[in-house]
Amino acid sequence: MTALTHIGNPTYSDLEEKICAPDQLRPKPDTSALVFGKYFTDHMLEVSWDSEKGWAKPVISPMHNLQLHPGAKVLHYAIELFEGMKAYRGEDGHLRLFRPDRNMARMLSTAKRSSLPTFDAEEMIKCIKRLIQIDKEWIPYSNTSSLYIRPTFIATDPSLGVASPNEALLYVLLCPVGPYFTSGFKPISLMADPQYVRSWPGGCGAMKMGANYAPTIYIQKQSELLGHQQVLWLYGEDHQLTEVGTMNIFLFMLNKNGERELVTPPLDGLILPGVTRLSLLELAREWKEFRVVERTISMAEVIEAHEEKRLLEIFGAGTACVVCPVASISYQGREYNIPRTEPSLSQRFLKTMSDIHYGRLQHPWAVDIQ
Amino acid sequence: MTALTHIGNPTYSDLEEKICAPDQLRPKPDTSALVFGKYFTDHMLEVSWDSEKGWAKPVISPMHNLQLHPGAKVLHYAIELFEGMKAYRGEDGHLRLFRPDRNMARMLSTAKRSSLPTFDAEEMIKCIKRLIQIDKEWIPYSNTSSLYIRPTFIATDPSLGVASPNEALLYVLLCPVGPYFTSGFKPISLMADPQYVRSWPGGCGAMKMGANYAPTIYIQKQSELLGHQQVLWLYGEDHQLTEVGTMNIFLFMLNKNGERELVTPPLDGLILPGVTRLSLLELAREWKEFRVVERTISMAEVIEAHEEKRLLEIFGAGTACVVCPVASISYQGREYNIPRTEPSLSQRFLKTMSDIHYGRLQHPWAVDIQ
Repeated sequence: MTALTHIGNPTYSDLEEKICAPDQLRPKPDTSALVFGKYFTDHMLEVSWDSEKGWAKPVISPMHNLQLHPGAKVLHYAIELFEGMKAYRGEDGHLRLFRPDRNMARMLSTAKRSSLPTFDAEEMIKCIKRLIQIDKEWIPYSNTSSLYIRPTFIATDPSLGVASPNEALLYVLLCPVGPYFTSGFKPISLMADPQYVRSWPGGCGAMKMGANYAPTIYIQKQSELLGHQQVLWLYGEDHQLTEVGTMNIFLFMLNKNGERELVTPPLDGLILPGVTRLSLLELAREWKEFRVVERTISMAEVIEAHEEKRLLEIFGAGTACVVCPVASISYQGREYNIPRTEPSLSQRFLKTMSDIHYGRLQHPWAVDIQ
Repeated sequence: MTALTHIGNPTYSDLEEKICAPDQLRPKPDTSALVFGKYFTDHMLEVSWDSEKGWAKPVISPMHNLQLHPGAKVLHYAIELFEGMKAYRGEDGHLRLFRPDRNMARMLSTAKRSSLPTFDAEEMIKCIKRLIQIDKEWIPYSNTSSLYIRPTFIATDPSLGVASPNEALLYVLLCPVGPYFTSGFKPISLMADPQYVRSWPGGCGAMKMGANYAPTIYIQKQSELLGHQQVLWLYGEDHQLTEVGTMNIFLFMLNKNGERELVTPPLDGLILPGVTRLSLLELAREWKEFRVVERTISMAEVIEAHEEKRLLEIFGAGTACVVCPVASISYQGREYNIPRTEPSLSQRFLKTMSDIHYGRLQHPWAVDIQ
């Protein structure tokens, strides 16, 4: 499509750096006080795009407000997308980024679906690594915290026509973060209400677009008012499980033959193709200790397994929380308490992932930043 | 809900005005050169909100860029909504605003669903009227052009948690506009492809959220590449007609008994409750010349009516275009040419609406601005 063809690419060799003066550096928050997405580091990366001139040079500069025309398309038609990945300070002192190639591939597919231009993923990863190096002192000295990386891509042209953008800005922010939920690794309670639907066939539920999140905020708030932490999104007349809040969902259970099975909904366009989801599936398939199945699963099946005591564990998986156990599901007037059978699979996944993140286990997924 | 309770209200008596110096006023575009949403007037209205301090004073000031934190929720989770209404320069010299109460009521319902705070609609209309008065020379001296009014409401707090906003900005822009389509009142061609679905039961299709628009841009572009001007959005296994591009859809036809019928899809949560849609229905019901029916209608029914020569006319209706006739629908490999039976109902609707807009017909819907 002509309008989307990119002219050139943002390249690492063109990267311009405007570093903070020492008196511009801000104090770092205490690791124990970290709240998800509240603190930002000293610098940000920006690359602007224009349908005529193509990509401009990438620039790293001190964190600053954006100057946006009030008619910018991002503010009216939500032409925007984001990614989320993490960098870790290893126990061996190395700084590592987790599977950035996967996040960049997803960012490109979302960009295409959003009518935003594409770019060279490897060059972008190099620019992001450089940003992290500059702000590396912000990576928490802690093996329960990390640096959250938020690539964001917005349409900036000041025109109210509902049409493909001609101007855009890609930028990357960094946030030191602790556990996503203020409750830490404590199991969370879910509200499953089929009257609210997050995504549907023919829609964009598999894309990391801002547009998938806005409609969920009010429902999330409703679930909190009812004493729950997250929404379990259902789909279809048989109330299939799709996602939980901002995470993919996993069920560890015995099937009708008494075999242990890890079940997660398939990538059918309704759910986000999570990088943590993929990693857990790959780990489990490598372990070869239980069946690993991607299939639709309905609430009726969950309830049946619950009643027949075949449910071993349910947990969410995502970049922000990594792995998050589910304590209960509230559904159609009943509260289902979810067991947590020892040894806990979610705990094992979290330990393995943490070992990779913090360099206790050498693994190709964890990419050295230096 | 506590977080959404508004403290006070933006009130007209608090309105602060910072008017452009004469040398800051920009030249007005030629009426013949107007493109939808490209030109903005000299001033804008802004009101900011904070969950602790409540609403600030409304301010009218020279048009300027917004300073937004790059972590602002609007840029990540699309917490944003807008409205669209128009002001007209009457042939009698009066300036009129069309049904602003309806747009403000819809804005409030979208705000609630978006976890944004509510406000007093009447006070907001007074502030908007004042903005229009200040920039009244921008209202085209033309009975085919008008001043488009774009209230916008965005979440501004700089925090990446997916949660209700604590800071927001409501602002209003004004644009002198000509016909929405560059083709003017010329009938448009539609692409109807059931693989793309705009909205879904349990979603937000009836809300004027930015999030409803982002996923449509790419599909709109696909339809243009195939030589069409707009997308006809279908829903369900029976391919029900829902909306056309950014408009509601109307069919004027003979039913199986040979009676003339105006048919439009019902407000079932899938479509936007358009103010033009409502106005056409009210006009038609007042005329009592043909049946007026709000019901679901499938593509199979449209094709059957087309084959039986019972289809008289199809047209879109919305604030931007008012009424826009449909020339053809491309569906499942076939191109259906839509007749335009004389006397044309869409032409009559357009004439009546224009008479009201430009003061040739005194009507309570057209509210005097002075």
